[in-house]
Amino acid sequence: MPFQSLAEFRHLLSRLPAPDAAAAEAARARNAQLTKPPGALGRLEELAIWLGGWQGTDRPQITQPQIVIFAGNHGVTARGVSAFPAEVTAQMVANFAHGGAAINQLARAFGATLDVHALELDRPTADFTEHSAMTEADCVAALRTGFAAVDTKADLFVAGEMGIGNTTVAAALAAALYGGIGWAGRGTGVDDAGLARKEAAVAAGVARHVAILDDPLQVLACLGGRELAAIAGAIAGARMLRIPVILDGFIACSAAAVLAKVVPGALDHCVAGHLSAEGAHCRLLEKLGMEPLLSLGLRLGEGSGAALAIGVLKGAVACHSGMATFAEAGVAAGA
Amino acid sequence: MPFQSLAEFRHLLSRLPAPDAAAAEAARARNAQLTKPPGALGRLEELAIWLGGWQGTDRPQITQPQIVIFAGNHGVTARGVSAFPAEVTAQMVANFAHGGAAINQLARAFGATLDVHALELDRPTADFTEHSAMTEADCVAALRTGFAAVDTKADLFVAGEMGIGNTTVAAALAAALYGGIGWAGRGTGVDDAGLARKEAAVAAGVARHVAILDDPLQVLACLGGRELAAIAGAIAGARMLRIPVILDGFIACSAAAVLAKVVPGALDHCVAGHLSAEGAHCRLLEKLGMEPLLSLGLRLGEGSGAALAIGVLKGAVACHSGMATFAEAGVAAGA
Repeated sequence: MPFQSLAEFRHLLSRLPAPDAAAAEAARARNAQLTKPPGALGRLEELAIWLGGWQGTDRPQITQPQIVIFAGNHGVTARGVSAFPAEVTAQMVANFAHGGAAINQLARAFGATLDVHALELDRPTADFTEHSAMTEADCVAALRTGFAAVDTKADLFVAGEMGIGNTTVAAALAAALYGGIGWAGRGTGVDDAGLARKEAAVAAGVARHVAILDDPLQVLACLGGRELAAIAGAIAGARMLRIPVILDGFIACSAAAVLAKVVPGALDHCVAGHLSAEGAHCRLLEKLGMEPLLSLGLRLGEGSGAALAIGVLKGAVACHSGMATFAEAGVAAGA
Repeated sequence: MPFQSLAEFRHLLSRLPAPDAAAAEAARARNAQLTKPPGALGRLEELAIWLGGWQGTDRPQITQPQIVIFAGNHGVTARGVSAFPAEVTAQMVANFAHGGAAINQLARAFGATLDVHALELDRPTADFTEHSAMTEADCVAALRTGFAAVDTKADLFVAGEMGIGNTTVAAALAAALYGGIGWAGRGTGVDDAGLARKEAAVAAGVARHVAILDDPLQVLACLGGRELAAIAGAIAGARMLRIPVILDGFIACSAAAVLAKVVPGALDHCVAGHLSAEGAHCRLLEKLGMEPLLSLGLRLGEGSGAALAIGVLKGAVACHSGMATFAEAGVAAGA
């Protein structure tokens, strides 16, 4: 494991691998020869070339996509920020194990493996409005769990999450990283009073930790939950293996934003899988400079929106790597 | 075959079957019990319920999707409306047969069967700026080919097309059905002069056939190509079998619009698979009152955008029909 502290993790982020530029160029050259008008596959063409760069080949494939769900519990739930009780986190982890959740069905539908890491559910993080949510040791442990969760044989990676209260945690991270108000949303479906409690908790959390707001990894430790730290670690782990990543919704993106704040380009191996219905996700994607692949009003978490987007990437590589060239097919290449 | 003339086809459209309301209601009730916050799967939930209604079950499935491509040639290509020569239609049909086109890869990626019907490629329709594109007999023959092309065992249907010049044909149909100008777009990639020629051809076609513009089926015969008539026939054929349909881009939607103009509700079994990059597709979808599932800048035809959207519908039915209920999973159902 290449890091044992936040300082070592920061150092790792300063020396992330780049994509294979020659492979990307070869993929771009192949794309220009395929039996279709130039650009007619739209964004699928750029996706295939991007995947080629990270996979190091002019013919990228997606045969072993991996989905990992990280679950955590949050002290901030004591502030009445969720429509569901905290026990539901463990109940849903059991549901994942029994194959009954949405992500189980999506993983099967798109041929992905699914791993679930429940992160000390019986030891919630501290209420970030009063304390640091995690110690540095807790945060590093979660980052390491995520980092190590990436299968070296995977050719595409999705990190999902489950954690009652974690849209409030994500909103606090976003507010701390980017400033401003209005990052809290309705999550699993809180009413107006619940939304006001979320906004108050986010404001209190940012105020409580104002001294460390210029250090993204300290922000993660002080405000973030274990599953968010694990997602950040997993995104970094995938990068070290040059495995492309599909980001899920607001929560996964807020964890990813920590890395982007530490190092510009830290998310170059990532694509936004979807625009979720959680209010501030659109704003967060704008901060990240990402255009989502799908926009279907999902707001479930579990990696579900990103899992659905595996289908789009599978379509992109199927076309790119399987189509005939004009020369192979004997088709006239146009005016 | 239930029709032998345009009058008989019009009569068939006046007695289309409705979805199974009880099945849709049962699917809606099931959706409310699944282990997720209410509405958290966004549009996937409505799609699954809609599919349940048409498939007549509270647990819809997509195990036998069918893609059919209809190919045709067009006299209007003499007016310089395409970046590609008319021979490419037959060359691409050969490419479909050899498995080299984009749609072959997408069909394989999403587990769909693929059939190709080449419609008298050596007998192009007449130039609609001077004559009726098709006789009534030709139009009925193409409608019948499409109607009969739907596999009675399919549980989802996509109609695609190939035909050099057919974005001009589609623009003429849209202009004739909805009025206004600006329906022509860049198709496979014409330059400004080519676009001006397309606009002129559309205007000339509408002016030439002004006497029949209030009869959508006559519009189809006078302006439409064989593959567009076949798509209209196939959409009607799927409806008679209560098989849900994913519409592709501008051309497929212009063919579908003919049916919607004949009978409101004729496309209730259809969903728009994607928003294409062909300029007027967005406007056409607004006329049809449809919200596309995907928007990735595709403008290839072949049914490619709709085929990509099969993945979204597969995800929807996988979640809906495979998830555990709150009771089955022992998960608390929220506040």
